[in-house]
Amino acid sequence: MSDEEVRRARAYLSRVAEPPAAALAGLVAEVGPVRAAWLVRRGEVSSAVDSQTSARRAEDRAEEDLAAVADLGGRLVIPEDEEWPEWPFHALAVAAAHGLRCGLAPLALWVRGDGSPAALTERAVAVVGSRSASGYGQQVAAEFGFGLALAGVTVVSGAAYGIDGSAHRGALTAGGPTIAVLACGVDIAYPSGHQGLLERIPHHGLVVSEYPPGFRPARHRFLTRNRLIAALGEGTVVVEAGRRSGAKNTAASTAALGRVLMAVPGPITSASSSGCHELLRSGQALAVSNVAEVIESTGRLGVDLVEATRDTDVDLPQGEALRVYEALPLGAGVSAEAVAVESGVELPRVRALLPQLELVQLAARSDGGWKRSHEGSQRGDT
Amino acid sequence: MSDEEVRRARAYLSRVAEPPAAALAGLVAEVGPVRAAWLVRRGEVSSAVDSQTSARRAEDRAEEDLAAVADLGGRLVIPEDEEWPEWPFHALAVAAAHGLRCGLAPLALWVRGDGSPAALTERAVAVVGSRSASGYGQQVAAEFGFGLALAGVTVVSGAAYGIDGSAHRGALTAGGPTIAVLACGVDIAYPSGHQGLLERIPHHGLVVSEYPPGFRPARHRFLTRNRLIAALGEGTVVVEAGRRSGAKNTAASTAALGRVLMAVPGPITSASSSGCHELLRSGQALAVSNVAEVIESTGRLGVDLVEATRDTDVDLPQGEALRVYEALPLGAGVSAEAVAVESGVELPRVRALLPQLELVQLAARSDGGWKRSHEGSQRGDT
Repeated sequence: MSDEEVRRARAYLSRVAEPPAAALAGLVAEVGPVRAAWLVRRGEVSSAVDSQTSARRAEDRAEEDLAAVADLGGRLVIPEDEEWPEWPFHALAVAAAHGLRCGLAPLALWVRGDGSPAALTERAVAVVGSRSASGYGQQVAAEFGFGLALAGVTVVSGAAYGIDGSAHRGALTAGGPTIAVLACGVDIAYPSGHQGLLERIPHHGLVVSEYPPGFRPARHRFLTRNRLIAALGEGTVVVEAGRRSGAKNTAASTAALGRVLMAVPGPITSASSSGCHELLRSGQALAVSNVAEVIESTGRLGVDLVEATRDTDVDLPQGEALRVYEALPLGAGVSAEAVAVESGVELPRVRALLPQLELVQLAARSDGGWKRSHEGSQRGDT
Repeated sequence: MSDEEVRRARAYLSRVAEPPAAALAGLVAEVGPVRAAWLVRRGEVSSAVDSQTSARRAEDRAEEDLAAVADLGGRLVIPEDEEWPEWPFHALAVAAAHGLRCGLAPLALWVRGDGSPAALTERAVAVVGSRSASGYGQQVAAEFGFGLALAGVTVVSGAAYGIDGSAHRGALTAGGPTIAVLACGVDIAYPSGHQGLLERIPHHGLVVSEYPPGFRPARHRFLTRNRLIAALGEGTVVVEAGRRSGAKNTAASTAALGRVLMAVPGPITSASSSGCHELLRSGQALAVSNVAEVIESTGRLGVDLVEATRDTDVDLPQGEALRVYEALPLGAGVSAEAVAVESGVELPRVRALLPQLELVQLAARSDGGWKRSHEGSQRGDT
């Protein structure tokens, strides 16, 4: 079979199931991507794979997706490529083999930017933190991003407002490299205020996603995405995090993957640093006050010093209910079938879940269809 | 022999050698203080003891020293007294037996203040830090001092400018208790700018020293003194410390004595916190962000406190500051006169205390009156 046949198969597979889809990944590992795609299309799969793929299996947009990304100057990077970040993703496979929820390497990676993901992650550190960062946090993130990039270390982050954006900008100021891992298609500028930033990054690094073009960001996708941020760096620096910040999810993944977890101290009078102090106090994270300490901590010695702790708090939602909820529009209602396609959850399950979501005031009926309730849309602010 | 004979002997011995004098301490342990003083006076001692005592052995000022301290309302507390802090100093003896330089209990303690050193150190935490503290550090030290004292924990420190002074002041604002350990005689106000503070402390705790009256502060005496600060607390909190701060010496003693070492995180952009971050990064210190974490970290202390607070407010200070604080409303501000009526504290004292409570962010001015600050009302559940 040709390279392009394999690439088209993986492009199809990356859309057909909502990651992380362990059963589908197992099938691909067993029979290869081309045969797996063929079996999925025909529905000749185990019930486990079927429940992950039945909602979208008829939707083969591989050619269009590959063309759309090519139009943006991008490409699909697959495990069969030399530029696949094999080593960073190895930890995900190991974690998956140990039954950790944060495990499972992506089936493929949609990429914008010329650099090789493998080469760019040879020396890489994730820098993450709260969207609602303080001036102090943003300054520190920018300085760390700048200093790491200047030292030739790729700065991995999630392109969010606050700490993420400052870390990327710091790295760009040094001329890169930096990698933004998105929770949506690489054709979508999210958050919209970072459109300019996301246009600049491919010139000095990469914008990557395991989601095909057109996929919208959703809460469970942020959590799923966080494992890739944790995996792509040799360690993760949490610059600022409140007690309930999403950055703590990335921190938990980092620890679970056996990566070095670092936290930046801040004023104890600042709620934005309370999550960092919690990580320090519990001994989960190492205190870092400057770029030199980050580099020192992520050397071989640093890795040896930090025990790979199995954190049970890693809470990636495999919940179908959350996916259904995230698929609901804020405006006019849509059909259950549309929700099934958007969420990748089987139609019968969608039909069962929607009334349950309605009961807890997360979904509402509207215009003969379904949408988020007012209550839910307020909570939906990821 | 009489009690007074023993006391006079220890007064003499406390002046005759510069502490820590291990050989002299060994002789005292062997033959008792009265016989040891007799032998030292006659020079009938080993060469080791002789080299520690020959320079001052002719200078017997025991009577004058005891009289001078009595004139200040103070006294000499000796190991033979029930109020001797036997348990806190036990760690020093153990350390000395292991050849640690920070070891060796004092031969006697010159004391101002009515409280019993033994009773006051049953629950005690040392709060130390840089003299050149930042506004942030001083605020944190004052809040920790206040909160610990409010919880019935004695705040031990060194009466220096900066962190030490703020910790003592915070404790005094709560009505005490607090202990200042000096590196000079208790008749000397050092630093001179803290004369007022050192006058107030004996009313709510103790000013103590192993140096007899008239002894001037000197650099080696600060280092020697630091071991007593570390020993008298169940643990030591370093609020702020530069890389070369003397507080790091107290921190080292704390660790060597097997006490809990804690450090307060601060902005990494502040040189005043760099010593704290070093202690956190190396794993020597535990991060603490509030008084509850300090109490939780000091094991035995925490257990004691849980029991104490379960009872009544017997262990809470009956200080006027607390009464004034409790009298403040959460909502609209009220006049000082109303606070005086509510608290039963005289109006002039109320007028003096309110600005102090404001300094530690427990009171706030509002509508031309006084109320609890937002910060204070959160802590008000103690």
